[in-house]
Amino acid sequence: MSARLTEQMAFLAEVEKLKSVTRATPIHDASRPENSAEHSWTLALYALILADQAPAGVDLNRAIKMLLIHDLVEIDVGDVPIHLQGGAAHGSAEIQAAEAQAAKRIFGLLPKDIGDDLHALWTEFEANETPDAIYAKSLDRTQPVLLNLQAGGGSWIDYDVSFEQLETRIGTKIANGLPSVWDWVRARVAPWFEMRR
Amino acid sequence: MSARLTEQMAFLAEVEKLKSVTRATPIHDASRPENSAEHSWTLALYALILADQAPAGVDLNRAIKMLLIHDLVEIDVGDVPIHLQGGAAHGSAEIQAAEAQAAKRIFGLLPKDIGDDLHALWTEFEANETPDAIYAKSLDRTQPVLLNLQAGGGSWIDYDVSFEQLETRIGTKIANGLPSVWDWVRARVAPWFEMRR
Repeated sequence: MSARLTEQMAFLAEVEKLKSVTRATPIHDASRPENSAEHSWTLALYALILADQAPAGVDLNRAIKMLLIHDLVEIDVGDVPIHLQGGAAHGSAEIQAAEAQAAKRIFGLLPKDIGDDLHALWTEFEANETPDAIYAKSLDRTQPVLLNLQAGGGSWIDYDVSFEQLETRIGTKIANGLPSVWDWVRARVAPWFEMRR
Repeated sequence: MSARLTEQMAFLAEVEKLKSVTRATPIHDASRPENSAEHSWTLALYALILADQAPAGVDLNRAIKMLLIHDLVEIDVGDVPIHLQGGAAHGSAEIQAAEAQAAKRIFGLLPKDIGDDLHALWTEFEANETPDAIYAKSLDRTQPVLLNLQAGGGSWIDYDVSFEQLETRIGTKIANGLPSVWDWVRARVAPWFEMRR
C-alpha cells in the first residue's frame, strides 16, 4: 500500500508544476498572466455552475474530472495560445504529438489503474466527441473570452484579434456545446470589438 | 433564462478574484506565493487521486465540489495562515464571522437554488463532521505540508515552526481523516525538521 501511495504522491508533486505554466490570458485585473492550474480550477467551477446549460447526457462529475486534468500535458509542452500564428499553432500535428507523449509520461507516474483511467479521460477530452468532452471543451473556450473581457481586452490586444476571428476560432466551438452561452457571451463581447474599430 | 445565466456569470466573474489571494505557502520552486485558486485546484486533484485512502462513506464527487468552493470566502477575508500568531488567528471567532458574511455575499450572487446548495456545502466543510468534509479538510491540511517540503521549507521557515507544532496544528488534523497519509507524510517531513535542529 505504501508503494502505491508513493506513486500517487509522486504524481501530486508533479502536477504542482502546472502553476508555472502561463497562458496568454491575463487574470481579472490584468496584473499578471493567468496560469494553467488556476485556469483549470475556474473551468471546474464553470462546469459546476453552468450544469443546467450542459448538453443532454452530460455526466457533470466526469466533466469536472476532465477539466481538472485537461491541461496537465502543458507541464511538458507549455500552453499554446489559441490566437498564436493566426490560430495555426494551436492543435497542430506537432503539438498534438508532444502532448500525447506528455500524457504518457505524466499519467504514467500513477498506479496503473488510476493512470489508465485518467489517460483515457484526457484522450476523450481531446477527441471532443462525447457529451462530457463537448461540454468541457466548450467551457474551456468560454472562460478565456470572459476573462479577456473582464481584464480589458487581454490577449485580443496582444494578438490583434478581430471579432470575426474570435467568432471563427472560438465562438463556433463554444456554440458547439453551449449555444445559449455563446449567444450570451457574444452579446457582451461584440460591443468591445465595435468600440475598437 | 437569460437573467438566470447573467447571475451565474456574475458569480463566475467574481470567483476570478480568488487568483489574487495569496497564501503563506510558496509554489513548488519557491518562486512566488501560492494563490488560493490554484491551491483549490490542487486539492480537487488530491481528492481524485487519493480516493482509495478516503474514509468509509465518502462521496468523492461531493468532496471535490466542496474543495472547489472551500476558499471562496477568502475573496473578502483573505487567507489566514495556519501558523500565524502561534496558530491562534486561524479559526478565531472574528475570522469565522467574517467568513460567514463573505459566504452569504458570494453564494448570494447565484440563482437561489444553486447558491443555497453551495452555501450548505461550504457550511458542511467548515463544520468538519461528515465523511465528505473530514476527507476534504484532511486533504486541505496535507497539500500545504507537502508543498512546503517540495519548496524547501516555505512557511515553516517564515513562521519558525517546529515539528511538534506541525504535528499539533496540522498532523492531528490530517490523521483525523487520513491516518495512513499522515504516517506517509510524517516519515518524509520529520527528517527535514531533524536536519534543522
